[in-house]
Amino acid sequence: MTPPDEDTKRRTLWEGRLASPMSERVRSYTSSLDVDLRLLPDDIEASLAHAAMLHDVGLLDGDASQAIASGLQRILAECDAGAFAVSPDDEDVHSAVERRLHELVGEPALRLHTGRSRNDQVATDIRLYTRRTVAALLDGIDSLLSTLQRVAEQHEHTAMPGYTHLQRAQPVTLSRHLLAYAAMLQRDAARFGDALRRADELPLGAGALAGSTLPLDPANVARRLGFSRVAANSMDAVSDRDVVAEVVFACALLMVHCSRMCEDFVLWCSAEFGFMSPGDAQATGSSLMPQKKNPDVAELGRGRAARVIADCVTALTMLKGLPLTYDRDLQEDKRALFDALDVSADTVGVLAEFIDTARFNAGRMRAAASDPLLLATDVAEHLVRGGVPFREAHRIVAEMVRRVEAEQRSLTDVSEAEWEAVAPGAASGITGLFDLDAALRRRGM
Amino acid sequence: MTPPDEDTKRRTLWEGRLASPMSERVRSYTSSLDVDLRLLPDDIEASLAHAAMLHDVGLLDGDASQAIASGLQRILAECDAGAFAVSPDDEDVHSAVERRLHELVGEPALRLHTGRSRNDQVATDIRLYTRRTVAALLDGIDSLLSTLQRVAEQHEHTAMPGYTHLQRAQPVTLSRHLLAYAAMLQRDAARFGDALRRADELPLGAGALAGSTLPLDPANVARRLGFSRVAANSMDAVSDRDVVAEVVFACALLMVHCSRMCEDFVLWCSAEFGFMSPGDAQATGSSLMPQKKNPDVAELGRGRAARVIADCVTALTMLKGLPLTYDRDLQEDKRALFDALDVSADTVGVLAEFIDTARFNAGRMRAAASDPLLLATDVAEHLVRGGVPFREAHRIVAEMVRRVEAEQRSLTDVSEAEWEAVAPGAASGITGLFDLDAALRRRGM
Amino acid sequence: MTPPDEDTKRRTLWEGRLASPMSERVRSYTSSLDVDLRLLPDDIEASLAHAAMLHDVGLLDGDASQAIASGLQRILAECDAGAFAVSPDDEDVHSAVERRLHELVGEPALRLHTGRSRNDQVATDIRLYTRRTVAALLDGIDSLLSTLQRVAEQHEHTAMPGYTHLQRAQPVTLSRHLLAYAAMLQRDAARFGDALRRADELPLGAGALAGSTLPLDPANVARRLGFSRVAANSMDAVSDRDVVAEVVFACALLMVHCSRMCEDFVLWCSAEFGFMSPGDAQATGSSLMPQKKNPDVAELGRGRAARVIADCVTALTMLKGLPLTYDRDLQEDKRALFDALDVSADTVGVLAEFIDTARFNAGRMRAAASDPLLLATDVAEHLVRGGVPFREAHRIVAEMVRRVEAEQRSLTDVSEAEWEAVAPGAASGITGLFDLDAALRRRGM
Amino acid sequence: MTPPDEDTKRRTLWEGRLASPMSERVRSYTSSLDVDLRLLPDDIEASLAHAAMLHDVGLLDGDASQAIASGLQRILAECDAGAFAVSPDDEDVHSAVERRLHELVGEPALRLHTGRSRNDQVATDIRLYTRRTVAALLDGIDSLLSTLQRVAEQHEHTAMPGYTHLQRAQPVTLSRHLLAYAAMLQRDAARFGDALRRADELPLGAGALAGSTLPLDPANVARRLGFSRVAANSMDAVSDRDVVAEVVFACALLMVHCSRMCEDFVLWCSAEFGFMSPGDAQATGSSLMPQKKNPDVAELGRGRAARVIADCVTALTMLKGLPLTYDRDLQEDKRALFDALDVSADTVGVLAEFIDTARFNAGRMRAAASDPLLLATDVAEHLVRGGVPFREAHRIVAEMVRRVEAEQRSLTDVSEAEWEAVAPGAASGITGLFDLDAALRRRGM
Repeated sequence: MTPPDEDTKRRTLWEGRLASPMSERVRSYTSSLDVDLRLLPDDIEASLAHAAMLHDVGLLDGDASQAIASGLQRILAECDAGAFAVSPDDEDVHSAVERRLHELVGEPALRLHTGRSRNDQVATDIRLYTRRTVAALLDGIDSLLSTLQRVAEQHEHTAMPGYTHLQRAQPVTLSRHLLAYAAMLQRDAARFGDALRRADELPLGAGALAGSTLPLDPANVARRLGFSRVAANSMDAVSDRDVVAEVVFACALLMVHCSRMCEDFVLWCSAEFGFMSPGDAQATGSSLMPQKKNPDVAELGRGRAARVIADCVTALTMLKGLPLTYDRDLQEDKRALFDALDVSADTVGVLAEFIDTARFNAGRMRAAASDPLLLATDVAEHLVRGGVPFREAHRIVAEMVRRVEAEQRSLTDVSEAEWEAVAPGAASGITGLFDLDAALRRRGM
Repeated sequence: MTPPDEDTKRRTLWEGRLASPMSERVRSYTSSLDVDLRLLPDDIEASLAHAAMLHDVGLLDGDASQAIASGLQRILAECDAGAFAVSPDDEDVHSAVERRLHELVGEPALRLHTGRSRNDQVATDIRLYTRRTVAALLDGIDSLLSTLQRVAEQHEHTAMPGYTHLQRAQPVTLSRHLLAYAAMLQRDAARFGDALRRADELPLGAGALAGSTLPLDPANVARRLGFSRVAANSMDAVSDRDVVAEVVFACALLMVHCSRMCEDFVLWCSAEFGFMSPGDAQATGSSLMPQKKNPDVAELGRGRAARVIADCVTALTMLKGLPLTYDRDLQEDKRALFDALDVSADTVGVLAEFIDTARFNAGRMRAAASDPLLLATDVAEHLVRGGVPFREAHRIVAEMVRRVEAEQRSLTDVSEAEWEAVAPGAASGITGLFDLDAALRRRGM
Repeated sequence: MTPPDEDTKRRTLWEGRLASPMSERVRSYTSSLDVDLRLLPDDIEASLAHAAMLHDVGLLDGDASQAIASGLQRILAECDAGAFAVSPDDEDVHSAVERRLHELVGEPALRLHTGRSRNDQVATDIRLYTRRTVAALLDGIDSLLSTLQRVAEQHEHTAMPGYTHLQRAQPVTLSRHLLAYAAMLQRDAARFGDALRRADELPLGAGALAGSTLPLDPANVARRLGFSRVAANSMDAVSDRDVVAEVVFACALLMVHCSRMCEDFVLWCSAEFGFMSPGDAQATGSSLMPQKKNPDVAELGRGRAARVIADCVTALTMLKGLPLTYDRDLQEDKRALFDALDVSADTVGVLAEFIDTARFNAGRMRAAASDPLLLATDVAEHLVRGGVPFREAHRIVAEMVRRVEAEQRSLTDVSEAEWEAVAPGAASGITGLFDLDAALRRRGM
Repeated sequence: MTPPDEDTKRRTLWEGRLASPMSERVRSYTSSLDVDLRLLPDDIEASLAHAAMLHDVGLLDGDASQAIASGLQRILAECDAGAFAVSPDDEDVHSAVERRLHELVGEPALRLHTGRSRNDQVATDIRLYTRRTVAALLDGIDSLLSTLQRVAEQHEHTAMPGYTHLQRAQPVTLSRHLLAYAAMLQRDAARFGDALRRADELPLGAGALAGSTLPLDPANVARRLGFSRVAANSMDAVSDRDVVAEVVFACALLMVHCSRMCEDFVLWCSAEFGFMSPGDAQATGSSLMPQKKNPDVAELGRGRAARVIADCVTALTMLKGLPLTYDRDLQEDKRALFDALDVSADTVGVLAEFIDTARFNAGRMRAAASDPLLLATDVAEHLVRGGVPFREAHRIVAEMVRRVEAEQRSLTDVSEAEWEAVAPGAASGITGLFDLDAALRRRGM
């Protein structure tokens, strides 16, 4: 048996096959290390389980198994300490780890890749990364939900206009408005949960695409890594990136929800609305205009939704039309996945702080909600209770609105007699409808 | 009370408020009828439940309720018979139904819109439409799964090359390859199921955005329409289009899976691969070249994935940055939803037929799989069983591959002595590895 | 020579090659007629030129040429009259025309497809369609530009706040604001012009992909159709869809510009801004809320930008990774192209009307622009003229803004002495800066 | 006048306005420095011109002007030497430069920002960056064009099958095929040129949005920076990102073209096609399968097209629906722009090397092109020359193809008598058509 010579560690994982080393330009174009180095903890977690299984089935003796495990733990420690050094020859995180392991423990390192391929390895790493990163994101979503709920409780009775078409529509409470975002976020959280559940199966064991001729025990690895089951089809296992597409989409929809919240905040922070003011530590100024206090956080939250939507496009478009099984195009999955999860986590985190520290101007909100036109529907529904068909009631009130607008009067200026004239027998009590708090109570707010 | 005059039926739902009728250009730009007419059965189903609830809570007397129900049933019958005539004045499916109902039953029609808005109405219609249409799509996916499984059973032992990087990698069976698509489709089906479950709540009752001042009973309506629960937040209920985004994404990923299948089929149908031949009734020819027999179905399945990915972009981008609650931008949701579901259903249907009627050329596949290079990994793993570290075994075999390539020999031409020279003590039995069927059995195929 | 039998007209263009007719499901899935029928005038224009060339080079005698020309003219007339009837057997616009021509003129129709393929034919049709449709769109853009310029002239001195971050920043005029959109539209128009120039070459003559063995004269056809040159590479000519991608992108960016205009209009129409009010014939109401007057046109213009962005995704994603030359995926190009051009033309048309009929509330704008904070930069620049480094001047004014805000005073309440205290030697004249019209004049407005 | 105190350099550009420093989370969320640091040379180029103009118009005295210029040059030198150190307090490249300039030259640094805003500054930087980076990309495209043309010349007479629907269609030359890509790249280059021409106007002078009250001379700056004109509308100038969208789109279409080339190369490198083999230094191997030699470069080129398409989505979606003028969302433009240009430049560079070093297997190509079915069209066109209407000729040959296929014969086995039987009077000479080189010559290849 050839002993591992000194130069082994300088080789690519597949050297021997080709007559010349990779050109610098090609190495630079194909290397994924700057992106996938983030998978290092996951790669090591998977390798630890893989090595333990190899030992269990007799493909690795106790000494080699021991050496590999302690070497991998040491690499993880180096990584945690920020002391893991990549080599220019490392193609990706997998080869970097194997190279370093060989430096640390020698010959046993050459036995680790037994019965696996980078194809099933990276598919496993991605799932481990996604599992732990989504868990952190879900914590962030929970915090944002708590913030929304806390502020909503404080403003349970803060009246404000509800808008459709950005036109004042009917009075609502700030609580109702903020809890609408909470409802969106709860669906988002559930969506991530579904994606994780669907991805809860182990690709390792699929090898390059066709499993292995060695007596591996994937169920053993699944157990060690906390997967519920082993992927059923080896060719699917190495070419499947559904978990990437699905999680990136869930991030995109989460960011879309955040962008709607942000749009409302940008509006509310304007002089024209005046409903909200960011904390001084959460606002920014202008390099030119001394008076400016800008809600940049909300604008960036809105703008970054575009980026995560684009990450979703990357994931789907990259996959479209790829023949089975693994194609190198799949390398592009990680950049999109990492970006979508990063932006999402940062955004929910900063929005929680933005909301928590903002001042809501209940007076401005109440004044805006006090526009009697917002109760036009209440009048129409009052007429319905008096027996007028709704479509007629709507027309009666609409015409009255047009009339008072033309006469530069308010709806509250219309007397019961005037109402009676257009809605005979149904007008009694209309003039009493124009109380904002009563209007909210009529709607259960 | 003003009686409904003759002209009422020519009015928009909101006439009375504005001094002049809508300009033709604006009417044409804002009308959604050519798209949303497909919601008619759903709109009527929802209206029937709404009217029944209005009766139950005392807002509609028995006669009106009766008249409305029979009128709606008649409109549905007209629709089924292709006899429902739209009017140029109809803005959308909701106004078309109310207009027609008024023509049919008169005054009671003016009472139907009591306590609801088109905002909660269309949100409800979309869910009903999605529920029934996704159910049909799931049937189509099931049929495609059955076809795949049936053909896979026929080809359980049909050897073919498995590919990575479109390079022959290791031998697999056609069954394994086809069942990889089945695994994708099973995840797709589950994804639609999750989306439906998440959307299983009734928006009706949310009104325009703030509920109603009338004593409605949304739980009654939910029960009648088969929803598990009522939307918790009225402002969310009318602005939420998650079900659209999520279903369109599920369609996009389904189509991406189909596009991968299609890419494989296009390759297999080429003269170079020669693995597959479409049925004559499933192929097309050329207007110029008399010899052509083209797999257009597979190409279109691949190309249309682009369109459904774009539908997903429409849904997300349309929603991004919209303030609460309803904005007219939301109207664009339906075109994307309908297109994504149509393309998906058509594609899974036509692919089932395409696969079912295609001829798979087992001879060509087996010949391609018989390339001894596909068993290079088997040799390396054999060396591992003989104690060689895998990384060394890989290098030994890779160098042998390079050598035989240079000498224009085959791997099967290498004698045990030659192997022994490079892998001392581990070579015994290598030359016996090059049996295709045995290689498949070693992998459990 | 076999005479064209009775049944020829029922055949596909390529029948003879395959043993069985196309299945109904495949026909329905592959047919493009519902989309590409719009190319009929272009298809006929190209066929007329092609037939004339065939005559010129001696491949068509005078009688056949005559018959074909008059037959094609008649089909065009049928089309203009809405009387062109498609047959269920027509695969696409090309086969529909050839089928109908055969019905009208018999045997000569069988000679029209000489030396061409549907591949070069459709590439030509698309260019003709794009040329005439973009010309119409450019007229629409011109009209919108005229409207903007006319309204801008009316409001040359109408002061309003200019916004950054949706915060009031500095005073501008409505004219300046409206002409910013005009600048965008002018770039859009130039972009379409570039795309047309780049596409000004004739694909016809490229055949399926490799030209023809017949003595065709593509330059003759180019001259007749008004193309400047013939495509240089036949394989590129039939697989190139750059004109689609480029025009759809130009539409997407045009719509993005329109969406920004629309967003401003939606804001301006809100009660909070109150800067703009749509004409009654250009607004819509609510089915529930009698008081509503909504700017739906602006919302739809904004929302439909999402759709055209998605059309751009369709075009690019459909093309990505397609091998040369023609693949059926390319069929999806037309739906995206037509939709992008339709939406763009409709939107610029309706926006011109929307702007033309809207009322701009100069009083509300001026009041909002009169906030003295908008002149904080003027104060800082005044200090600069007095020798203060700008960064210091900025800080001095910013601190003053903070102070007056805390004291609930206005910047105009700050005396020259107070300014002198913080900016010794540079404060003279500051209190005179707070005149809105003078501030506009200082900026050349 | 307050002297710049020690702490000035720790401040944000706008400190003074707000009571508390920015929170760490907000700083991290809003900082763009990790992305926009690449603009440093452009920012300095623009600042040098701006400062020179300030001196020319008398807003900066000679000493200050001198100090600023030498300070900026020194920062540029630090940047070139990799020695420019960012501070955690720097918000973006603009504030980093101003901060460092202040460290280097003191008080004059506080005068540089006179009459400008980061809004017009970054718009200018982006144009300068784009101008120089696109110039480099155009050089890369030129090199790729040269490579294609050189290889095409070597293979002017190398026959290969041309494909439609990935079915062999007609014989072409490798030259014709490679030059089809060249045609695409030439359009790409022109497209970048158009974008640069359209962006050839200076935003600087627009200030935050409304110009300045100081006597600036933007034409002076334009001259110094090599812009042909000054932006006409200040509000457009600071909110316009057309150059980003247009250049990113041009990159996306370029990458789509590259992806089509890559797809062909992936096919050609397969064992089934066998037309092409990458250089050993341009190929990669497998970590598991010792025999593999993979064309990863081509796969990544194809996959990365997805990413640049997504960059185009980011640019358009980010801009959609933004009100005028500057909104912080615009910050996301740079990441998309930089990525699109980087990927494009890397891809054209690596593809030139990939093609240059690949081996084209003329023997395999010729063998594939020698399939007589590829000349079926030649037969049909021969019949046309004999007077048969093309549609009939097509049918006659198609039926013959079907017959010989059924009889497992070749088209070359069909005797003239057999042809005569189906095409009386037109068959003479058909059997002489089946010469590949002659067939190419008939098409001018």
